[in-house]
Amino acid sequence: MAKKISTKPGLPSKGRPTARDAATQKKLVGLADTVARNALAGKEPVIHVPTRSKSNTIWNKKRGILEIGDAKQERQLFNLNQAKQFMQTMIHASTIKDLIELQKTASLRSVFYKAKHTVAGTKENTFDTQDESDPILEDLEVSLGALREELHIFAENRGTLVGNLTVIDRGDEINARKQGSGGWGIPSIVEPDAIQFKKCEAKFVLHVEKGTVWNRFNEDRFWEKNNCILTHGAGQPPRGCRRLLQRLNQELGLPIICLLDCDPWGHYIYSVIKQGSISLAFESSRLAIPEAKFLGIRAKDYRELHLPEAARIDLSDNDIKRANEIAAYPWFEENRRWQSEIRQMLDNGFKMEVEALIGRGISFVTETYVPERLARKDWLE
Amino acid sequence: MAKKISTKPGLPSKGRPTARDAATQKKLVGLADTVARNALAGKEPVIHVPTRSKSNTIWNKKRGILEIGDAKQERQLFNLNQAKQFMQTMIHASTIKDLIELQKTASLRSVFYKAKHTVAGTKENTFDTQDESDPILEDLEVSLGALREELHIFAENRGTLVGNLTVIDRGDEINARKQGSGGWGIPSIVEPDAIQFKKCEAKFVLHVEKGTVWNRFNEDRFWEKNNCILTHGAGQPPRGCRRLLQRLNQELGLPIICLLDCDPWGHYIYSVIKQGSISLAFESSRLAIPEAKFLGIRAKDYRELHLPEAARIDLSDNDIKRANEIAAYPWFEENRRWQSEIRQMLDNGFKMEVEALIGRGISFVTETYVPERLARKDWLE
Repeated sequence: MAKKISTKPGLPSKGRPTARDAATQKKLVGLADTVARNALAGKEPVIHVPTRSKSNTIWNKKRGILEIGDAKQERQLFNLNQAKQFMQTMIHASTIKDLIELQKTASLRSVFYKAKHTVAGTKENTFDTQDESDPILEDLEVSLGALREELHIFAENRGTLVGNLTVIDRGDEINARKQGSGGWGIPSIVEPDAIQFKKCEAKFVLHVEKGTVWNRFNEDRFWEKNNCILTHGAGQPPRGCRRLLQRLNQELGLPIICLLDCDPWGHYIYSVIKQGSISLAFESSRLAIPEAKFLGIRAKDYRELHLPEAARIDLSDNDIKRANEIAAYPWFEENRRWQSEIRQMLDNGFKMEVEALIGRGISFVTETYVPERLARKDWLE
Repeated sequence: MAKKISTKPGLPSKGRPTARDAATQKKLVGLADTVARNALAGKEPVIHVPTRSKSNTIWNKKRGILEIGDAKQERQLFNLNQAKQFMQTMIHASTIKDLIELQKTASLRSVFYKAKHTVAGTKENTFDTQDESDPILEDLEVSLGALREELHIFAENRGTLVGNLTVIDRGDEINARKQGSGGWGIPSIVEPDAIQFKKCEAKFVLHVEKGTVWNRFNEDRFWEKNNCILTHGAGQPPRGCRRLLQRLNQELGLPIICLLDCDPWGHYIYSVIKQGSISLAFESSRLAIPEAKFLGIRAKDYRELHLPEAARIDLSDNDIKRANEIAAYPWFEENRRWQSEIRQMLDNGFKMEVEALIGRGISFVTETYVPERLARKDWLE
């Protein structure tokens, strides 16, 4: 049965500012006002930036996500160590205000170029490299409590989608059932005023790690036969892809089922999709999907499926180190089934990729492996 | 005026084998027959593989493309140094025959997994790593005179397209005018029996280097205002993207106009799009676009457009080395305007990225730079 979804009156990005834009603009003006008010009152201009570090990251067991703690850093104008970053923060805030007013978006690199110049009368550059610029934008995100996407800044589009879903993308209706072999590119900005879900018959999302695996599933029309949506994120999925998966989960109630490699990298990708990451802990509530499921590849598969020896890739010393680190993450540490999964991989002494299932036939993964696991709900959570 | 294109009766990939498949299958069987006939006649089984090296690459000045020469290497079964590669070639040929019969495609990695096993009664593996496997597939391409795509093998999809074009992709009609901010992902396999052009009003293709630049042009609806198709290839465009551009050029007569960075990497990308590359010289006639144009960024732009100092990135020693190597390519060496372009970049002592044009305004590149250059046909060829 097709779900009919009442969409919010989202505007294409070139329309008048949305309510969300107005709210962001208000926050930006508030930041500038605080600085100005202090200065006019003869007080030292200071801004407070929540600390983005492992020590200020909290595991919220109840919500099942990583969150940022209360620690904040002061950024003072009249402090030799902080004056430059203070200035950088103000320059970027000003660019973002312009972007919102113009109803345009810009890439991380463009924002860096926009800001980079030699300070008049000095030989000092505002920014020397983009490595200096990107963290200042993250500072603004977390200080203002506004997603990068709400600041009108995008990264590279990455990841692809097909399946039983109709999406409105900046006013264009995308029928994801008719996207051929190419698929619809998942945009970097997928907030509700840009992207709305119009019609969805799908019962779940199958998220795979790599584009080449996605090709196999799309060619076999897995999403049609199994009434789902098929996505990949080209490795560690970027923010746009994670946010879209979260919206599909929260707004349409679709389970997110992940098919990733049986190796520490696959486990880490799952961990980030599910609980969030330390570096973006301040955005977990808009990115993390605590309900996400890990369907495979499982360490038991080698024996259970009589896979050929070719499926085995020896674990390196670094793999073993990473596996132990991941096993010690609080959200895995308390999970007996995950502890056993990682232990079994370490006992095997080898990792396995999804592609290795070709040892059982070209379409074994789409016609047998995934359908059987789904039918008996054989996954890790 | 919209061009109506009579499409060939292309089949979705899951239909019965196409004429192209039948031809490829015949070549594969021919290869096997030769080996079998020799063996049965008591002669040594040998295959001949055209040599893919710089020394066997010829610059065809008249056609304006790189071509592979006549040099061939023997691959003998009864030669200790060649027996393994002989076996590897036969294993992959057999997998490809299966793929075509099943009407399926497989990724480079899957084909490696399919072939990898321990030879019965020995401790020897057929393949140890994918690095051994991919060149054997290229050997088969060039020996059989069949594109990798014709061998039913794909790489990662990469690159995106929007614009005034309707495409049929494995039977699905894709309206590239209605692809939102995400765009249609350019598939890895874009041969005529998979992808047909249905309707095209566009007068040219603007091909940009990066996805983030593509986003700027798409957000400003450049393709709509300038009646074109907008593509990117995520850096050096993969084969699927290059082949699609070539088909748009040859079948629809659209000029391919490239907007790339003013640096040796941008010049090299242009060179590959235009003339082909040494490693894929055997496929130039199906990939290269001798008519492709280089619109910018140009070395003169810094002064001509009064760009801010921020636009400059100092050339590294390696950049200078690469620039001189590229200037010595025969197709650039004989081109006075290109010699002057590279010289000017070296004299400047700096490179420039497309994103740096933001120094003149967020949409300067889409509203002023490209339209003005197009109007006065200010490009390099």
